[in-house]
Amino acid sequence: MRSLPVKSLLLKSLLILLLLVNTAFAAAAADPLPSWNDTAAKKAIVTFVEDVTREGSPDFVPPAERIATFDNDGTLWSEQPNYFPEAFLYYHIKALAPQHPEWKNQQPFKAVLEDDMKTLSAGGEKAWLELDCASHAGITTEELAQSVKEWALTAKHPRTGRLYTEMAYQPMLELLDYLRANGFKTFIVSGGEIDFMRPWTEKVYGIPPEQVVGSSLKTKFELRDGKPVIVFLPEINFMDDGAGKAIGIEQYIGRRPIAAFGNSDGDLQMFQWTTAGSGARFALIVHHTDVDREWAYDRTSAVGRLDKALDEAQAKGWTVVDMKNDWKIIYVFEKQ
Amino acid sequence: MRSLPVKSLLLKSLLILLLLVNTAFAAAAADPLPSWNDTAAKKAIVTFVEDVTREGSPDFVPPAERIATFDNDGTLWSEQPNYFPEAFLYYHIKALAPQHPEWKNQQPFKAVLEDDMKTLSAGGEKAWLELDCASHAGITTEELAQSVKEWALTAKHPRTGRLYTEMAYQPMLELLDYLRANGFKTFIVSGGEIDFMRPWTEKVYGIPPEQVVGSSLKTKFELRDGKPVIVFLPEINFMDDGAGKAIGIEQYIGRRPIAAFGNSDGDLQMFQWTTAGSGARFALIVHHTDVDREWAYDRTSAVGRLDKALDEAQAKGWTVVDMKNDWKIIYVFEKQ
Repeated sequence: MRSLPVKSLLLKSLLILLLLVNTAFAAAAADPLPSWNDTAAKKAIVTFVEDVTREGSPDFVPPAERIATFDNDGTLWSEQPNYFPEAFLYYHIKALAPQHPEWKNQQPFKAVLEDDMKTLSAGGEKAWLELDCASHAGITTEELAQSVKEWALTAKHPRTGRLYTEMAYQPMLELLDYLRANGFKTFIVSGGEIDFMRPWTEKVYGIPPEQVVGSSLKTKFELRDGKPVIVFLPEINFMDDGAGKAIGIEQYIGRRPIAAFGNSDGDLQMFQWTTAGSGARFALIVHHTDVDREWAYDRTSAVGRLDKALDEAQAKGWTVVDMKNDWKIIYVFEKQ
Repeated sequence: MRSLPVKSLLLKSLLILLLLVNTAFAAAAADPLPSWNDTAAKKAIVTFVEDVTREGSPDFVPPAERIATFDNDGTLWSEQPNYFPEAFLYYHIKALAPQHPEWKNQQPFKAVLEDDMKTLSAGGEKAWLELDCASHAGITTEELAQSVKEWALTAKHPRTGRLYTEMAYQPMLELLDYLRANGFKTFIVSGGEIDFMRPWTEKVYGIPPEQVVGSSLKTKFELRDGKPVIVFLPEINFMDDGAGKAIGIEQYIGRRPIAAFGNSDGDLQMFQWTTAGSGARFALIVHHTDVDREWAYDRTSAVGRLDKALDEAQAKGWTVVDMKNDWKIIYVFEKQ
């Protein structure tokens, strides 16, 4: 009758082993995208990542070629009621105003200083460009970076009262992490200014400056008191929007992405360029459908218009995220 | 008397352990730069790398900021009797000639087709630019990459009879590996065309396309038979030389290097920009002093002139590699 305790001990041991194995497997299988509901969008992401990373899979892609490009405004953080780079532009102009007393009586600067959004909107892209060039001319890239860092640490969004950088989308941060954990190299390819993004993208998105592509002004190199500086010129160097995104990818990255993530017609050519490559490809559009938790807009919006790209997504079977139904939470600050 | 065998066994075990530890240490301390003689240049490199990577060192630099930039022509491979990108340009024009019968009677194309180097030299930079623009106009970035790959696999250097890519400098390949093993991210910043380098730098130098900065032509995005392509325009986009190298670094990398490697006056502003940052900085010039194994040239050379940068190196204590005395072998094909 000695066999019982031994058997019991063995069973207990096996049970403990089973529990351990189970815990280990559960940890290994922990949901990498906890803020995503289990809808088609999430399944499409996971299927694609598993297909391109599984050795022996017909869709396997070597790690060096796992390039993923992300639009910024409206894709990684909000872009309403105005693109966030616009908020920085006004901040920067106000900060420089004491050195430019003439701006008080000169449009479009006067409108910025008086928060006269009506005049600014009426001025359109021309006013923006004038403000952008004037506010950069003669300042160094280091001075601009300093101003951007101050803005990122202090400026608050008019609706949420949160730092703009806290309005990064939690589900997209999880997606960035998930891709990187699977050997992807993640890049930003944004219509926003490259020098506005680089000072904070590493901290907020885990994307280092050298993996940020964006619009830019021309610069010149000069020695100031014997010290080399790079100074902005009031002239556009590159517009990283629409067809410019495909060109920017080729120019900066030099390798075609296998996955692209965006939210507007400005991303259409990036999607086309990405998906036209051979092998498995992935395109995902963040569709702003959540009027309560974020904003709802698409075909007729002045900011982040999504019209042609939405049609092409439907025609070509690209993944469209329905923000309202696909995301459990929106912002990083909602995370428990 | 039983203690002796036990003691002997213990001693034997200790001896084996000692041998193992010794072998392990020897492996760990294996010379990472075996093709470098033990001269001042090698010591300067190793001291710098140890200083910036040792935790607790006053010069410690976090891995993310360990950016090292390398010129290509004359720094990572030879550049005589003509810059190697020039050899590709002529190859490419010859390959395209059947589609351009008019080139037979039209300079500077005629000179290329007839290997008339005298006329080409006389034409100078203007002729080069005309050839470069004409040979790119209307072709896609993928078509150019294909042509570059063919050239890299077949074209041989007139003096060594070796593939151009075999004329990469073995000591510099070791240096690239050594830096990467110490957490550095290595970039090329070359006056050569970016689209000429990217198809082979990963294989030859271990530097992926997205870490290559160079000169470029403008491009446009278009749909050809519904398929997106990026097509070259006969117009300069960016000249990555001289002050352009500092600008290119800021534009593409967005982070100041802590170490820069070059060989000519075209690298001067890259050195200035790099060394003007705070903390430990490193600048190294490859001085071509080996008339027997490679070439010897500096202040008066038309190719890779090294004059002002040599003066500044001496004044500022930058490291100058004396190729003849500092390198055991020159080329990767000399490696045993």
